[in-house]
Amino acid sequence: MKFARLGPVGAERPVVLDGDTAHDLSVLTSDIDGEFLSSGGVERAAEALAAGRLPVLDGYADARVGSPIARPGAVICVGMNYAAHAAESGSPPPETPILFLKTPNTVVGPHDEVTIPPGSERTDWEVELGVVIGKRASYLDSPERSREHVAGFVVANDVSERQHQLVDSGGQWSKGKCAPGFNPVGPWLVTADEVDHTDLRLRSWVNGEPRQDSTTADMIFGVDYLVWHISQYMALEPGDLLMTGTPEGVALSGRFPYLSDGDVVELEIEGLGRQRQTYRAARSRA
Amino acid sequence: MKFARLGPVGAERPVVLDGDTAHDLSVLTSDIDGEFLSSGGVERAAEALAAGRLPVLDGYADARVGSPIARPGAVICVGMNYAAHAAESGSPPPETPILFLKTPNTVVGPHDEVTIPPGSERTDWEVELGVVIGKRASYLDSPERSREHVAGFVVANDVSERQHQLVDSGGQWSKGKCAPGFNPVGPWLVTADEVDHTDLRLRSWVNGEPRQDSTTADMIFGVDYLVWHISQYMALEPGDLLMTGTPEGVALSGRFPYLSDGDVVELEIEGLGRQRQTYRAARSRA
Repeated sequence: MKFARLGPVGAERPVVLDGDTAHDLSVLTSDIDGEFLSSGGVERAAEALAAGRLPVLDGYADARVGSPIARPGAVICVGMNYAAHAAESGSPPPETPILFLKTPNTVVGPHDEVTIPPGSERTDWEVELGVVIGKRASYLDSPERSREHVAGFVVANDVSERQHQLVDSGGQWSKGKCAPGFNPVGPWLVTADEVDHTDLRLRSWVNGEPRQDSTTADMIFGVDYLVWHISQYMALEPGDLLMTGTPEGVALSGRFPYLSDGDVVELEIEGLGRQRQTYRAARSRA
Repeated sequence: MKFARLGPVGAERPVVLDGDTAHDLSVLTSDIDGEFLSSGGVERAAEALAAGRLPVLDGYADARVGSPIARPGAVICVGMNYAAHAAESGSPPPETPILFLKTPNTVVGPHDEVTIPPGSERTDWEVELGVVIGKRASYLDSPERSREHVAGFVVANDVSERQHQLVDSGGQWSKGKCAPGFNPVGPWLVTADEVDHTDLRLRSWVNGEPRQDSTTADMIFGVDYLVWHISQYMALEPGDLLMTGTPEGVALSGRFPYLSDGDVVELEIEGLGRQRQTYRAARSRA
């Protein structure tokens, strides 16, 4: 199934998508969040849709698309999880997953305008497969148990300011990962049964020119391994977002310019939809 | 004023403390959270207390003490913010604040038992002055503006697993900062007008033996500077917790053993109260 949240910021309406038709989910739940995902919400939505109990939502064809999940309790990111991206970043491939966090208030809709931070000259894109947790995961016994804890998948952009991340940071990356709007998510939450997450093509473009073009098959650590591994260090909770790392083809490589005012970034993952954001320079504070 | 949250995990009751007397705040708010703090809740509570409209809460004298703030949207931490601690950690003092994040689900009560992660041999304590944000702070003009955005202060323990933080992490610290229970907070939220946060003695003990004993006057970057600085990189939101770094005297220094089963850690900051946690080895999963 495909879930989405449509409407103005802070007033998104939860829907189930059936082709191009949006069915109103607000008769079942106020939001697509950890409570919904961990309490059998997906199954209830499927039953209600099949039974014709979810009314078609009219007047939302041109609505803003929000993040398909409500603000998470945590956004956990994996760094350097594609060997070619590690190389373009000047690093060897890691021997164990490298974790860092984004503040959950970075999560925005997939087509929302992104403000380039004041003074930034190194704002960069990162298309990533996002994993949405459906059931609490703490000290899982093995990677084989991970799938029980995954609700579904999303396209996510781990927008990064490289000067802040790598130079002004003392080496801790979160400083360049948390500016307002730095985590476009969506358009859809696609349930785990609908895609083979082990081999999805993921791509990005800037102003229509290709940048990243890889497959999740190239991950160093796959989703099952990551969920198990991370659960040894922190408790993943329903509604949390796990970002699985980006492949090669970002500006940090030196092969492409960083983002500037008016640039349009598009990101797509096979089966999970496409994002399109315009980047705007911060207005002067003078 | 002093706020607290008393009662079982997940069912804490908000109170105002007047000496040893707990006045029930639940007639005014369901919780001590960002919504309460950013909507004039502190002022409403003061008025209601003065007017005798907050009933004394009976039967809570022996209640569990929860974190005095509800789960934050983000826990933002500053690393190496005391020169002597940077030195004992083998690092020079930073030229700019080093930021990292804890997952908000680490926040627990000040006296809750903490589980040492399975296999851990390097679990460590860190007493820290915690700053609770009262008003959204994004791109503040100057450090002088910071105080408008601070609701108050708490004692916080940035519990850390050094092997996970420094060795198994690829250098990104969050991996050793987010185990369940790794952020005891409280006992009280003390409003900013009641303490001079620029010179508070902060101390810790293990099994009654002194460990840390410093003052917030020794911070490299003070609270006003930190709130302003961090607001240039991320939006701080009401209810967020900012941890301002720990002084020297942790096990990482090599001068003291790491924590093991049965150890009791106490932490105190002048005017903000005292924590006491017992550490327990994880039960075998066999």
